[in-house]
Amino acid sequence: MAPIRSWFSIPRGSHFSLANIPFGIISTASSTSPRVAVAIGDHALDLEAFAANNGFSALSTIQPHQAVFSQPSLNAFAALGRPLHSVVRKYIQSIFAQDTPYPEVLQTNSALQKQALLPLKEVQCHLPFKIGDYTDFFAGYHHAYHCGVMFRGPANAMNPNYKHLPVGYHGRASSVVVSGTPIHRPHGQILENPAAENKIPIFSQCRKLDFELELGAFVCTPNQQGKPVSIDEAEENLFGLVMMNDWSARDVQAWEYVPLGPFNAKNFGTSISPWVVLIEALEPFKVAGIENDAEVLPYLKQKTKETVYDIQLRVDLKASSGNSATITKTSGRHLIWSFPQMLTHHTITGCNLQSGDLIGSGTISGTVMSERGSMLEQSDNGKQKVKIADGEERTFLQDGDEVTFTGVCGSDEEALVGFGQCTGRIEPAVNLGL
Amino acid sequence: MAPIRSWFSIPRGSHFSLANIPFGIISTASSTSPRVAVAIGDHALDLEAFAANNGFSALSTIQPHQAVFSQPSLNAFAALGRPLHSVVRKYIQSIFAQDTPYPEVLQTNSALQKQALLPLKEVQCHLPFKIGDYTDFFAGYHHAYHCGVMFRGPANAMNPNYKHLPVGYHGRASSVVVSGTPIHRPHGQILENPAAENKIPIFSQCRKLDFELELGAFVCTPNQQGKPVSIDEAEENLFGLVMMNDWSARDVQAWEYVPLGPFNAKNFGTSISPWVVLIEALEPFKVAGIENDAEVLPYLKQKTKETVYDIQLRVDLKASSGNSATITKTSGRHLIWSFPQMLTHHTITGCNLQSGDLIGSGTISGTVMSERGSMLEQSDNGKQKVKIADGEERTFLQDGDEVTFTGVCGSDEEALVGFGQCTGRIEPAVNLGL
Repeated sequence: MAPIRSWFSIPRGSHFSLANIPFGIISTASSTSPRVAVAIGDHALDLEAFAANNGFSALSTIQPHQAVFSQPSLNAFAALGRPLHSVVRKYIQSIFAQDTPYPEVLQTNSALQKQALLPLKEVQCHLPFKIGDYTDFFAGYHHAYHCGVMFRGPANAMNPNYKHLPVGYHGRASSVVVSGTPIHRPHGQILENPAAENKIPIFSQCRKLDFELELGAFVCTPNQQGKPVSIDEAEENLFGLVMMNDWSARDVQAWEYVPLGPFNAKNFGTSISPWVVLIEALEPFKVAGIENDAEVLPYLKQKTKETVYDIQLRVDLKASSGNSATITKTSGRHLIWSFPQMLTHHTITGCNLQSGDLIGSGTISGTVMSERGSMLEQSDNGKQKVKIADGEERTFLQDGDEVTFTGVCGSDEEALVGFGQCTGRIEPAVNLGL
Repeated sequence: MAPIRSWFSIPRGSHFSLANIPFGIISTASSTSPRVAVAIGDHALDLEAFAANNGFSALSTIQPHQAVFSQPSLNAFAALGRPLHSVVRKYIQSIFAQDTPYPEVLQTNSALQKQALLPLKEVQCHLPFKIGDYTDFFAGYHHAYHCGVMFRGPANAMNPNYKHLPVGYHGRASSVVVSGTPIHRPHGQILENPAAENKIPIFSQCRKLDFELELGAFVCTPNQQGKPVSIDEAEENLFGLVMMNDWSARDVQAWEYVPLGPFNAKNFGTSISPWVVLIEALEPFKVAGIENDAEVLPYLKQKTKETVYDIQLRVDLKASSGNSATITKTSGRHLIWSFPQMLTHHTITGCNLQSGDLIGSGTISGTVMSERGSMLEQSDNGKQKVKIADGEERTFLQDGDEVTFTGVCGSDEEALVGFGQCTGRIEPAVNLGL
């Protein structure tokens, strides 16, 4: 696809080209109520201000719904359904196109430009959705395999169910935060010597604090309780994707997780990138995921092989010393289950999903060390040092470390579809006074 | 405590004596907006109508907050904190007392009686809270032990972590429903022959559908992310208790749950009783829970032994044939972890709980067969028949079965503190057209 040329200055290499139009929630110093915006180049287009000043005058279908742009979350906009999201995205693309049919709306309307086009660096981003439930899957095949080898050896690396169903668990919705929110090192119960016969835990700060490189999908169209969503309909119920850091306390996890799964190890914080990239914008970057050599049951079978996205993902770690390194480069293609498969499996019992529910992919890793999306894998559970710079090394995260995910699709610098960044810095554990 | 005598007719044996005053959300045919009420005998006192007609005129502390009674959930009322809940409860007790100091408010105000005192049989109860997150623990020691023996034998029945931390997992909040809501038998992946070498699942209706007898606690006061709630403060953050049926698909669970815990096996529906009994009302029924012979870490140590409640719990199963039986009689005392311990452990990482979050106890079973709170235990995972009546038997639940929990504290028929009922009927699986 040729890039859409614009009358507006969009820097080459911007994640937010006109091919993208991601949605988020912003506020500014002069207008502190959170509201809906899209990102375009180095700017946010404030859709509340845009709508209030007749920005949608040429788009009759959205006019009855314009109140959604004044909401403090994307839930109401998402619930309108994908056909309307598409109409809004394409209309905004047309408004910014060099040959826009509606120059009077914005191109020649300097008053509205001044009011609604806000430099991103002056904008505060908020959590894009009010998240009802958050579910995290385990669809990153190479991650599941690496972890399986680490804990059970190569012969038993994969559990018998892994290729038959998208393994997942319910996560903690209340502690999902937007990129930039600091994360305190958690306390918890850990075993100082997990190999010892006597399993007596101590209370401690987490000593194996980790990140997990994931993608998250937001639900737009809800399904009623008792009504599963078929695999052919599932993608239509997905709004868009973000990058997600599922912070993990590996030592807490190792002690607590049998038999009911990870709990405290994951509930203290999950960071997501602020701009939600619509499924439609990702369509050109669909690729085949990891081939599943099991016979997948019919309810999970998709019609096409291209069901996941070639999102180039990167993890950077910056220490408080100033030393930094890119420690992971991988791709969103390394999934054995697609988001539509996760959604359909989730609802097959009749479980109801709601607008704003978040579905995580699980950690995404490639096959080689430099593609692994967690310190657990990179350090072989603490046995290997990961090099940063100037002799500085890591096994797990230290206080002051800042972890930044970057994700982008495409190679045409004028037509990138990117996610921006998802970042978080580790703060020291709080003093519990115990 | 002597019962509070009333000018109002409260039947002997009512769960909703003046010693109780449980809160819920109601609507009626003539006034369909859900709103806050308390249950008193065979009636609901509509607190929206009561407040609008100066019912709280003698209670200045609640007057700035009266809008909470018009809300469709208890979240806003709960968020006011326990001192205000107590004031409202005691004021309502005083309004109904035989020697009420405020006869003009209701006793001699027949217009308000007619408007605000609604027969329970004419009232529709709704989900009492908008539940942000729902967490289910595993604190029923005998249940955990019975299940452990069933699946791992007596020597390995208890996992090493069990007595050191309240094991729990994040549940599905969206599918929590109020008592009376039918539950469709879910579909899912199951192994027809779990013992076979070859682990190939089939797609099927659940064949091992079960109930779980639990208590649920609602959070009132939230804690900030990063700020754990100390064990001494934890009870103050709890609003009240309900009975909870954590419907479970045992065959789905057996196949899916390693390594991330139960997911689809539990996400299709969880039923709760509609009237939330305040912690304060349960205070006289505190008893010691199951003694924990492990050395509990200091952050989980409570000052008193009496940390759980002697709630007499009963499960009745009524088949579509009309045959019925009481299949379980047990007590809320059979917990090894208290709700304050669960809450503190939940937040020890810094996880934030919000007003309206639901915490489940896990299945409550006593030591003997007639005290076991699930069909899994009663039938020894399908090996034993549970007798209903007239030769009718069960291993797991059949379509048309109605499961009803009843819970009550106390023996003085004029001062019972009861939960009413939590009931649900199994509907046939929906036709998926697959």
